[in-house]
Amino acid sequence: MDFETKRIAQLVRENNANIIALQFPEGLKRYGPSLAMQIEQELGIRVILSGDPCYGACDLDLESDADLVFHFGHAEIPQLDVERVHFIEVRSDIDVAPVVRDALKVIDSQRIGVVTTVQHIHQLRDIRSQIESQGRECRIGQGDNRIKYPGQVLGCNFSSARAIDVDEYLYIGSGLFHALGVSLATGKRVVAADPFLHRISVPDARAIVRQRYAVIARALDAGTFCVLIGTKIGQRRSYLAQELVQEARERRHRAYAVSVNEVSPWLLYQFPADAYVNTACPRIGIDEVSRFKAPLLSPIEFEIVIRKRDLSDYTFDEL
Amino acid sequence: MDFETKRIAQLVRENNANIIALQFPEGLKRYGPSLAMQIEQELGIRVILSGDPCYGACDLDLESDADLVFHFGHAEIPQLDVERVHFIEVRSDIDVAPVVRDALKVIDSQRIGVVTTVQHIHQLRDIRSQIESQGRECRIGQGDNRIKYPGQVLGCNFSSARAIDVDEYLYIGSGLFHALGVSLATGKRVVAADPFLHRISVPDARAIVRQRYAVIARALDAGTFCVLIGTKIGQRRSYLAQELVQEARERRHRAYAVSVNEVSPWLLYQFPADAYVNTACPRIGIDEVSRFKAPLLSPIEFEIVIRKRDLSDYTFDEL
Repeated sequence: MDFETKRIAQLVRENNANIIALQFPEGLKRYGPSLAMQIEQELGIRVILSGDPCYGACDLDLESDADLVFHFGHAEIPQLDVERVHFIEVRSDIDVAPVVRDALKVIDSQRIGVVTTVQHIHQLRDIRSQIESQGRECRIGQGDNRIKYPGQVLGCNFSSARAIDVDEYLYIGSGLFHALGVSLATGKRVVAADPFLHRISVPDARAIVRQRYAVIARALDAGTFCVLIGTKIGQRRSYLAQELVQEARERRHRAYAVSVNEVSPWLLYQFPADAYVNTACPRIGIDEVSRFKAPLLSPIEFEIVIRKRDLSDYTFDEL
Repeated sequence: MDFETKRIAQLVRENNANIIALQFPEGLKRYGPSLAMQIEQELGIRVILSGDPCYGACDLDLESDADLVFHFGHAEIPQLDVERVHFIEVRSDIDVAPVVRDALKVIDSQRIGVVTTVQHIHQLRDIRSQIESQGRECRIGQGDNRIKYPGQVLGCNFSSARAIDVDEYLYIGSGLFHALGVSLATGKRVVAADPFLHRISVPDARAIVRQRYAVIARALDAGTFCVLIGTKIGQRRSYLAQELVQEARERRHRAYAVSVNEVSPWLLYQFPADAYVNTACPRIGIDEVSRFKAPLLSPIEFEIVIRKRDLSDYTFDEL
């Protein structure tokens, strides 16, 4: 694992930093203590590890007294642009070529759009060659101002997929969430290639829409809505939340807004409502649907509940 | 329950506030939604409820976009002085005279020091009369710059007790933590009078010292220490934490610092160490001792572990 300690040392010198903070996502947190002690010893500075859970580049820990913050494992969200935060992206060593080769066997189209997460982004050039060597066209789209690299997708942003006109998509990475999101956002078939498990799958977006329809159905009779606002720097949508509160009231519902660092099932017990609308991290309600007893709607699902949007327009909420 | 809606309305007008936040401790959170909707309707402004857990006036939610924050149920910590936060203290309606009358029967001393929490602070004058009517002396001390009212104690601050020279203390309030803290801080007997349960008790500080000694003993062989820094505004002791890291290293231990919003048992799994030192909320390790598998030491307990302090000098950590 390359934690770019030379770059860290250089930035510490350039900024005359005395205290730095290191922030890791959950899967990398275990590397924190030894890296912190190594940096303290080598550079003679103080290091504070960020202990709070971290799920993305939207979730920057700016709470410590550190002069510089090094955020590991995620690509910067250009829109946020917090000067004292530096991103150490951490690439996966795994060679994606074998799983891409097999995935291409189940893709019939000529024009293929490729999307992936930041940890495989350095292999996009090779993937393009792989596709083009079969005489097919490879398109890689540039996302919006939340996306750093062409072809990069986030669980809350599929703009790099939407930016290109293709027949079919190839998603490289673990999990099915991103692939489902791309499929819903574009209406196209997405082949998901997981290089870690060497597993190829074609997720069925209709299945998740049915699951979400069940949640939406349970909110149709709601009298009181609680609208959640995330306080993490890259998840704040206060203005949208206040609009949703107003929209609910215009339809003679009761509604109120609650700000929260992290949306969790037990939070909801403190704030009684018939349905919740989550304007923070869009993944939570969908990925963890079974943990929430009450309906936890996305803003888009709320629009369906109040009949402002048709169910056929269903898509994942994006930031 | 008086939530001082007139004062809120006045402050909203004076400050031309468009958005306000309301922050309640856990026991009062259930009043939030209806109060929020009432204020929005009456004043035509937007209200955001703070959804994160809140355990004291040290724990101010400054995350929302609100022009003003109303913090309910706790007295201000004067030291913190955050301009846009206003405190709605919420007094208990319960008459403490009956339990004070019975508590005085088990107090033999002539000079009695009285301490209580903010919810009973308005009854101190009557308690003084009750004591003096028995021909005894009542002393009420002024605490340090974390304490707003004479006689007020916090779970992390017993300075108003230490400020007076008395033979015995009367604590009025629920729970035994404050009474134990006063007893350890002053070395005097404390009679605890719980007005809610009408229960009088004389907590034995030696029992808690024995329990803490067991925790300390388990840390005596620790090779690696993880020092926790709280990021809540009134719990930050970064400088102390860094000193403790240095002290551990000078004694050839490994040590590193972790910042965290809330100290919880599952947090510790991410950061392996033989013992943890908590510079955040002093109550957590003691009140919730059984939830922590690894030793969670206060800075004072850490001093005992590294033989800088004698066990006979044991006292609760204070902020």
